[in-house]
Amino acid sequence: MKMRTLVLLIEYDGTNFSGWQIQPNARTVQETIEQSLNKLTEQKYNIIGAGRTDAGVHARGQVAHALIDNKFSIPDTKIAIALNSRLPKDIRIRAARIIDRDFHARFDAIAREYSYTISLRESVFTRHFTTYFRYPLDFHKLNETAECFIGKHDFTTFSKLNDSTRSYVCDIEKCFWQEIDGLSYRLSIKADRFVYGMVRCLTGAMLEYAGGRMTLNEIKVALSKRDRSLCPALAAPQGLILEKVYYDESKKSLFSQSF
Amino acid sequence: MKMRTLVLLIEYDGTNFSGWQIQPNARTVQETIEQSLNKLTEQKYNIIGAGRTDAGVHARGQVAHALIDNKFSIPDTKIAIALNSRLPKDIRIRAARIIDRDFHARFDAIAREYSYTISLRESVFTRHFTTYFRYPLDFHKLNETAECFIGKHDFTTFSKLNDSTRSYVCDIEKCFWQEIDGLSYRLSIKADRFVYGMVRCLTGAMLEYAGGRMTLNEIKVALSKRDRSLCPALAAPQGLILEKVYYDESKKSLFSQSF
Repeated sequence: MKMRTLVLLIEYDGTNFSGWQIQPNARTVQETIEQSLNKLTEQKYNIIGAGRTDAGVHARGQVAHALIDNKFSIPDTKIAIALNSRLPKDIRIRAARIIDRDFHARFDAIAREYSYTISLRESVFTRHFTTYFRYPLDFHKLNETAECFIGKHDFTTFSKLNDSTRSYVCDIEKCFWQEIDGLSYRLSIKADRFVYGMVRCLTGAMLEYAGGRMTLNEIKVALSKRDRSLCPALAAPQGLILEKVYYDESKKSLFSQSF
Repeated sequence: MKMRTLVLLIEYDGTNFSGWQIQPNARTVQETIEQSLNKLTEQKYNIIGAGRTDAGVHARGQVAHALIDNKFSIPDTKIAIALNSRLPKDIRIRAARIIDRDFHARFDAIAREYSYTISLRESVFTRHFTTYFRYPLDFHKLNETAECFIGKHDFTTFSKLNDSTRSYVCDIEKCFWQEIDGLSYRLSIKADRFVYGMVRCLTGAMLEYAGGRMTLNEIKVALSKRDRSLCPALAAPQGLILEKVYYDESKKSLFSQSF
């Protein structure tokens, strides 16, 4: 049988989800999409996402795939519209493509990019996608710490416990903060891989320094010690968005037309 | 007894409210704030808002007042923090001020400004504050219709039925659309007063013309006929935000320091 893979580009508001990954008695993004897909096709497919985002974390550019068979008869130009009409409004399929070869959304990914937005003003309009920071903050210190994390490091200190993690070494290619408006700041962080809880742990540490509760040296020492108990703080999930998943050109070219 | 008035500047996400005004068996903004204020002060005050926004409509700059007495002992520098700690996250008090004279948030207002945002792309991030418009749209036509509404007109055609409305004449000072990004457009509209449902009716008409379903002349004729049955469409509430309430300088100067 010929190999066929459905690739989806997905946006979601994580506020009312217990994260991406299927778990018992919880509303998850993965299960919600699978249910819509299986109802649409009257088949039973499994979808696998590139990033297993935590409860409350959002995505603008999650990528997922499903191995499909010849019973899958919907043309790929119609999949997004058909799925969106069945999905709740907090998930939108931005694009869909069927490719005639194997593709693994997670294992084939070569990098991921996240953003984390904080605001010094509490607002009802941004509250689901921004973390309100109620203390004075030195913007330049945010970028001073961000620079320390660039490159290849063992990020054990800045991770949440997860038995299935074998290596804590990640290579951060990009890590910087931008001022969005006078009262909001956004972190952009890109790495080959992220360990569990890493962006929220790193953001927490950067906010500790920028808020004057830790020195830069303390953070550097914490990083070098590879000791989870030294992680100063975990930033709240609602500021975090999975922005983009990267694939090498040979893979990307298979579906980039529609993505 | 000396006259004292509490003035509040309020922001709210109208998504989960049945509008501003108190009504039986419904969650309203007015009642939610009154309850927090009365719990905080252990008194029974009534608050009156400048604009009675509909179900699902938001506010960035709603103004409300309450006549207070000498039993009200909280200094105005502490009111916003105290109320915000009691209010749900979809309402925030942006500022509070106590003035030693009478002031009426609604009757003293000399103008109101609203915004209405539409997007040609459906997004989970903006869905509560933006109306998704799924058809091709000519941006220049939005502003062509907007111009027709500027000035003093009888807006009966573009209103919802409301028995307490005595005059449908409103003077629109400002009415124009701006491109926010390539796929979103925002209307700014300012008038001395608005009749019930007016911004949504006008927006609906502008979208009818820009979407090619009505001619400009049909809209002009509808306006001149003063006939509610000619109102072409009512735009959805979620795109609408009460941005600002205007007062003349003699009033404004009483509380503008904190607002």
